[in-house]
Amino acid sequence: MKINILGCYAATPRSFTNPTSQVLEILNNHFLIDCGEGTQVQLRRNKIKFSKIKHIFISHLHGDHFYGLVGLVSTFRLLNRETELHIYGPKGIKEIITLQLKLANSWTNFPLIFHELTSKEPELILENSTVTVTTIPLKHRVYTNGFLFKEKEGDRKLLIDKAETYNIDFSLFKSLKKGKDVMSEDGKLIPNHLVTADPPPPKSYAYCSDTVFDPEIVPLIKKATVLYHESTFLEDKADLAQPTKHSTAKQAATIAKLAEVEKLILGHYSTRYADIELFRIEASTIFPDIILADDGKEIIVE
Amino acid sequence: MKINILGCYAATPRSFTNPTSQVLEILNNHFLIDCGEGTQVQLRRNKIKFSKIKHIFISHLHGDHFYGLVGLVSTFRLLNRETELHIYGPKGIKEIITLQLKLANSWTNFPLIFHELTSKEPELILENSTVTVTTIPLKHRVYTNGFLFKEKEGDRKLLIDKAETYNIDFSLFKSLKKGKDVMSEDGKLIPNHLVTADPPPPKSYAYCSDTVFDPEIVPLIKKATVLYHESTFLEDKADLAQPTKHSTAKQAATIAKLAEVEKLILGHYSTRYADIELFRIEASTIFPDIILADDGKEIIVE
Repeated sequence: MKINILGCYAATPRSFTNPTSQVLEILNNHFLIDCGEGTQVQLRRNKIKFSKIKHIFISHLHGDHFYGLVGLVSTFRLLNRETELHIYGPKGIKEIITLQLKLANSWTNFPLIFHELTSKEPELILENSTVTVTTIPLKHRVYTNGFLFKEKEGDRKLLIDKAETYNIDFSLFKSLKKGKDVMSEDGKLIPNHLVTADPPPPKSYAYCSDTVFDPEIVPLIKKATVLYHESTFLEDKADLAQPTKHSTAKQAATIAKLAEVEKLILGHYSTRYADIELFRIEASTIFPDIILADDGKEIIVE
Repeated sequence: MKINILGCYAATPRSFTNPTSQVLEILNNHFLIDCGEGTQVQLRRNKIKFSKIKHIFISHLHGDHFYGLVGLVSTFRLLNRETELHIYGPKGIKEIITLQLKLANSWTNFPLIFHELTSKEPELILENSTVTVTTIPLKHRVYTNGFLFKEKEGDRKLLIDKAETYNIDFSLFKSLKKGKDVMSEDGKLIPNHLVTADPPPPKSYAYCSDTVFDPEIVPLIKKATVLYHESTFLEDKADLAQPTKHSTAKQAATIAKLAEVEKLILGHYSTRYADIELFRIEASTIFPDIILADDGKEIIVE
């Protein structure tokens, strides 16, 4: 699992900081999460192939999370993309994008499929052979979802030496990987656990931005491998966090602790803070395993 | 008169090139012309104060000329702008911007005034005490206007020494600047031309992007001080210029020559060309005074 942070600063793009966007690579899926202005340039700078992106998830319709979307879609068109593009985001996103394509007389030459979200309950929005994606309803100034990306449990790991010792024909290896017991060539029933090992535990990534401090999300993200939780402010501005429906670094760490996640990535920093190291210092008093997002950072989760 | 080129490359933004946007400073007016994705960052990088921009002119609704507009408007809002912002552009632009502000629940706290254009004839769209702005209908794949920015003739230049020699009271200096004859303190009628000189000739800036080669615009831009004319292609791709309704460097130079302008700025280069110097070489065979636009370039017209 790998996360490329394309942008992780709140509000307006500046000369050297970018609004929110990131690419999650999970079991060979490349998911673009949020798409602030300039995302297509950040994709180029971070050498992420445009053609790998088939699914884009937009948390909410504040500009710093989606103003780069129409430009990216237009660029896909100019690059003669043919493969489907799926866009998941709040109701209204289809009208915004299609209105602009229509007025430019530039309809896409690839299927552009919108999945508009309106539910206030968690819902499964994508499932394929390797992963599921579920919404995490968040509390912000407008309708907002986080997203929980979960690997499916993989095949059991075949212990080749053991399988040979028990005299199992290789045509049965696929059944073994699926957890089935099989017959050996000399007619004995071989219990699966003797010749296979548990697969690696499935990883998961919970993306929560933007949101006020909200313990109600804890059951939804329980024991996630990695939690990205916004920390727009430090505690010195807790009085601003509440009315703007953002979180402090300490609050993000509290959610991470309550949810018993393995690692916490902080981001969506207000540009009023000159040194993002302050976010780590504050959050570390509550939760130990902190990673600070920063534009261009690649985070690999083993 | 000063032109800051913020971006001058066609189609998609890339790591080190920007789509179209420029700031024209003319008699203390600061006009933003087109606003591709990333324009607000380019304004910052070029140290142009956001508060100086009160009028934005959008030529047409292709993304590389306006996808940065909604982000700039949103940033003005975050910066607590209070002064009016006027936006001139094709019909539809108001719906695009207001739809996005509405869905973000982020209406501006300053007056946002749209001037939607539909005429296929040149029309005066702005006049104040120092300048006029008139549309230049262009032929492109969608409804498109160029813009002619013209200084008004200024006051006559007072020759202080002469005025004193002729014994004219300083309370009459304003009348002299306006071209009037006045009485000296000893009661003689002093003809204006004895104590004033002609003002500097008014300058003008004709912005023409995007457009196919179209000599019909020549009378509208005749003897302009500076012409910005798109040159998406070189002659090697003239076969592409016609169907995409763009121009070659040679065609841009031909328009400059026919219109007898003083200087020609080339821009809107296709990113297929690695060296923009080739545009100068091609255009120079037709017209002598060429300036190559480039991102971040400041062009001062004396």
